[in-house]
Amino acid sequence: MSGNEYLTPKSQDFNEWYNSLVLKAELADYGPVRGTMIVRPYGWALWENIQQALDKRFKATGHQNAAFPMFIPVSFLEKEAKHVAGFAPELAIVTHGGGEELAEPLAVRPTSETIIGHAYAKWIQSYRDLPMLLNQWNSVVRWEMRTKLFLRTLEFYWQEGHTAHATAEEALEETHRMLGVYTDFAVNEAAIPVIPGEKSENERFAGAEVTLTIEAMMGDGRALQSGTSHFMGQNFAQAFDIKYQDTNNDWQFCWTTSWGLSTRFVGAIIMTHGDDAGLIMPPRLAPIQCVIVPIYKNDGEKSDVIAAAESMHQELTDLGIRAQIDRREQLSPGFKFNDWELKGVPMRIEIGPRDVQNKALVLARRDQRGREGKQPISRDQLAVVAPELLRQIQASLLQKASDFQDANTFAVADYAEFKEAVGKGFARAWWAGSSDDEKRLQEETKATLRCIPLEQPGAAGVCFYTGKRAEKIAIFGRSY
Amino acid sequence: MSGNEYLTPKSQDFNEWYNSLVLKAELADYGPVRGTMIVRPYGWALWENIQQALDKRFKATGHQNAAFPMFIPVSFLEKEAKHVAGFAPELAIVTHGGGEELAEPLAVRPTSETIIGHAYAKWIQSYRDLPMLLNQWNSVVRWEMRTKLFLRTLEFYWQEGHTAHATAEEALEETHRMLGVYTDFAVNEAAIPVIPGEKSENERFAGAEVTLTIEAMMGDGRALQSGTSHFMGQNFAQAFDIKYQDTNNDWQFCWTTSWGLSTRFVGAIIMTHGDDAGLIMPPRLAPIQCVIVPIYKNDGEKSDVIAAAESMHQELTDLGIRAQIDRREQLSPGFKFNDWELKGVPMRIEIGPRDVQNKALVLARRDQRGREGKQPISRDQLAVVAPELLRQIQASLLQKASDFQDANTFAVADYAEFKEAVGKGFARAWWAGSSDDEKRLQEETKATLRCIPLEQPGAAGVCFYTGKRAEKIAIFGRSY
Repeated sequence: MSGNEYLTPKSQDFNEWYNSLVLKAELADYGPVRGTMIVRPYGWALWENIQQALDKRFKATGHQNAAFPMFIPVSFLEKEAKHVAGFAPELAIVTHGGGEELAEPLAVRPTSETIIGHAYAKWIQSYRDLPMLLNQWNSVVRWEMRTKLFLRTLEFYWQEGHTAHATAEEALEETHRMLGVYTDFAVNEAAIPVIPGEKSENERFAGAEVTLTIEAMMGDGRALQSGTSHFMGQNFAQAFDIKYQDTNNDWQFCWTTSWGLSTRFVGAIIMTHGDDAGLIMPPRLAPIQCVIVPIYKNDGEKSDVIAAAESMHQELTDLGIRAQIDRREQLSPGFKFNDWELKGVPMRIEIGPRDVQNKALVLARRDQRGREGKQPISRDQLAVVAPELLRQIQASLLQKASDFQDANTFAVADYAEFKEAVGKGFARAWWAGSSDDEKRLQEETKATLRCIPLEQPGAAGVCFYTGKRAEKIAIFGRSY
Repeated sequence: MSGNEYLTPKSQDFNEWYNSLVLKAELADYGPVRGTMIVRPYGWALWENIQQALDKRFKATGHQNAAFPMFIPVSFLEKEAKHVAGFAPELAIVTHGGGEELAEPLAVRPTSETIIGHAYAKWIQSYRDLPMLLNQWNSVVRWEMRTKLFLRTLEFYWQEGHTAHATAEEALEETHRMLGVYTDFAVNEAAIPVIPGEKSENERFAGAEVTLTIEAMMGDGRALQSGTSHFMGQNFAQAFDIKYQDTNNDWQFCWTTSWGLSTRFVGAIIMTHGDDAGLIMPPRLAPIQCVIVPIYKNDGEKSDVIAAAESMHQELTDLGIRAQIDRREQLSPGFKFNDWELKGVPMRIEIGPRDVQNKALVLARRDQRGREGKQPISRDQLAVVAPELLRQIQASLLQKASDFQDANTFAVADYAEFKEAVGKGFARAWWAGSSDDEKRLQEETKATLRCIPLEQPGAAGVCFYTGKRAEKIAIFGRSY
C-alpha cells in the first residue's frame, strides 16, 4: 500500500514524518517566537474533543473548574525549595508593566501549585472546606531549548488539577484516582494502551513525594509520558500555610495533589496511530468522523449526488456522528481521498451517480486502506453500519497499538539484552538500582526508567543491572 | 422585602454592593498581583455557560477555534501605528527567558490582531482560502491602573474572533453579523437588553475603521460596553502583508475584522439583574437552575425527605435542568434560602415531611422573593411546571431590565436636560458634534457617547450641544 506522496514515509524517518505530518495535516504551525506553536483549527478541534472527554470525567469525580492568574510573583516560587530548583531555569519573566519597571518581577506560570496554594490558604479554614477539588484549563510557559510541535513547546495547553485533603490517605487516593481517569481516557477514548506506574525519585515532579504517570509507546518504539498525577505530601501546605481546623478545633496542615495532561497528548495520538499515508484519528476523538466525497462528472450527475450526500449527512448527524461533505470543486476524488487520509478521518463515504441509482454507497475505513477496507452497502443500511464501523475502527486501533506495544516490550535479564531492547522498544526488568545507577544507565544507553508499573507480578527477582535482589519490575525506554 | 444581612444594599451603595457581592457569592477573588483576578468555580461555571452559548453561535456562522501564542514580539505591535499607540502604555513585557535576557522583548498579548495577521499572511495565498474565519478563547493582559473585578482587570478572559475577507463589503457584513450574534446572545441568553450601535471616532478600537458595540444599562443607570466588533479596513492587511491572488491572478490586500466579548459580561449580568438579596442568574446561563432544600427535624423525617429530593433531582436532570440538592448538615433552611438567594439560583424547591406525605412541594422563584413568589404544587406536576417557570423567569428578567432601561433613557433637547439625564441613566439626543465637542462634553459631564444606534428614526434634528443640523441620534451615559 502506497503512502502519501507529500509525506516522508514513517518507516524511513519517523522524526521527519512526524514534523511534516503535523504541518501538512494543518494540526499546528510554528509561532513567530522561537519554540512557540500555533494550534490550527483541525488540531484545536481534536484538543477540544480531548478536553470534553476529560472534563466530563473530572466533573463526574467531583471536581470544579476555576481560573487563576498567569502572573506569579517570583517570591512565591521560591517558597518551596525543590519546586523553584526545578522550574527556575525555565521561567519567562515579566519585568515591566504599563511602561514602568516592576518592584517585583513576575513569572509567567510554569505550573500553578504556588498561586493556588496561596489561595487555598485563604479559602480553607475548616475540615468542612475539605476536600477542595479544583481544575483549570489554560496554557503554561516553560522556556525549553529543544522544542518539537505538541511534544515540547515554549507555551503549551493543558489542564492542571489541584486538590487539598484532610489526610495523607485521601490525598494519595486522589492521586491514584486521577491516574485512573487518565488511563481510562487514554485507553477508551484515544485507543492508546498506556502503562500506569510510578516515577522513580529522579523523575519526580519538583516538590512531589510521589509522581504517578501513564507511559505510552509510540510508533518508533519510544516512550512518551502522557499524563502525570502527583502526591505533594505536606510540602506545599507548609510552604503556603494551607491549614484547617479539625473536629477538635486543632489546626492541621493539608495534604495536596496536582495532576495534568497536555497538548502533548495530541502528539501521542499522531505517533501511536499514524501511518505512511498520514494521521489516523481514533473515532471517539476525531474532529470529523465521516467524510462524504461526492463523485460526479457533470451538473446533472452533481445535483443527484449532492442530494444523496446531503441526505446521508443529515442521517449521520442525527445519529450523533460528526460528518462533513467535501464540496470542493476542481479537485479530483482521488486527491480528496488522499487529503482525508492524510487528515486521518476514520470513515469515508464514496457516492457516485451509479450508487444513487442503485440506492447504494461505498464505505471505506481509514485503518484498512485500499480494496480490503471498502465495503459497498445499500443506502438503507447506513444508519446501522456506520456507527458499528466506527466502533470497530476504535477497537481495532486499540488492538493494533496493544499488539505493537507487546511485540516491542522485552523482558530482559542482563545488560546486553537491555541495550538491545531499548534500541527497539521497552525493556521490562527487575530493578533494584539507586538514583546514581539510574543516571549512569541513562548516560550509557540513553534510556530512562519510564515507570514502575502499578501492576506487579509479585515475588522478587534479580536486578539486571546491579545483581541485587529486586522487588519491583520497572519499564525502561528512550524518549524524545 | 429585606435584603441579605451580609450585603450592602444595592440602593445604598451600588459600587460597594457589587464588590461585596462578587466576593460573597464566591464568583471571584483578588489575585496576589495587584489588579489580577481569580475566577472561582461558581463564577467560572457561569463563564463556561456563556462560552457554550457563544461558541455554538460562532460555529453555526462558520467559524472555527484555534490557539495562537501569548507572546508577541514588540516589533509586531509597532507595525500598525494607531494600534501600538493605543496599546503600548498597557503592555506587560517579558525581558528574560530561561535565565537569559532576550534579544527582543516580548509583549504578553493585549489582543491578537498582529500575531494572527502574521499567520494569515502565510496561510492566505488565493481567493480560495477566503474567507478565513477563526476565533480563540484565551486570556489577555492590559496593565490597568483602576481595576474592578470582572469589569477591568489586569488579565481577563475573553474570545477574540479574527477574520479575513476578499472584499470590504464581506468584511463589513461580518462585522455586523457578529454584532448580531452578540445582541442575540445578550437578549436571549442573558436577558440583557442591549443597544447595538457604532462607536464614535474617539472611542474606536486602536487600528479600526469602524467599531460596533452593544451597550447595556446597569442597575445604577450607568452604561457598560458589553461586546465589540471591528472592521479594520486594510490597515492590518497592509501592515502584515495579508494578500490573496484573485481569479485574475492579481494580488489584492485582504479586508479584516475582529470581535470580542469578555468576562466583563459576568459583571453585566450581576449589575443588570441583581438586587438587595444578591445575584439573580438568568435561567439559561445559571450554573444551578434549581436548588432543592430538604427540610427535616430528625432522622426518620430525613430519610423520607431526602428520598423525595433525590427523585425530584433525577426527574429535573432528565429534563435537562441543572439541579442540585443542598445536603449540608447543621445549617437551617432559612440560612440555606438566604445563601441560594445570594447566589441567585433562579428556582428553589422546598420539601418537608408534610409535603412528602401530601405528594406535594413548594416552588419559589428568585425574582419574586417572599410569599408572592412561592407556589405549592403537587409532585406529579413538577415536570410540567419547572421548565415553564424557568422560561417565565427568563422572560420576566428581560422585561424588567427593558422597562428599567426605558424608564431611565431620556430624550433630551438641550444641555440642561442632558446633564440631568446622564445623572440618572442614558441621554438620547440628536448629535452633530466634532471629536473635540465630544471630549469637552465628557470633561464637563463625565458622560461619553456610548454609541450611535444602528436603528435610527430617520429624518434629521437639531444637535442639543452644537445647535447644528444632525442626522443621527446618539446615546450618552456615564460608565465605570
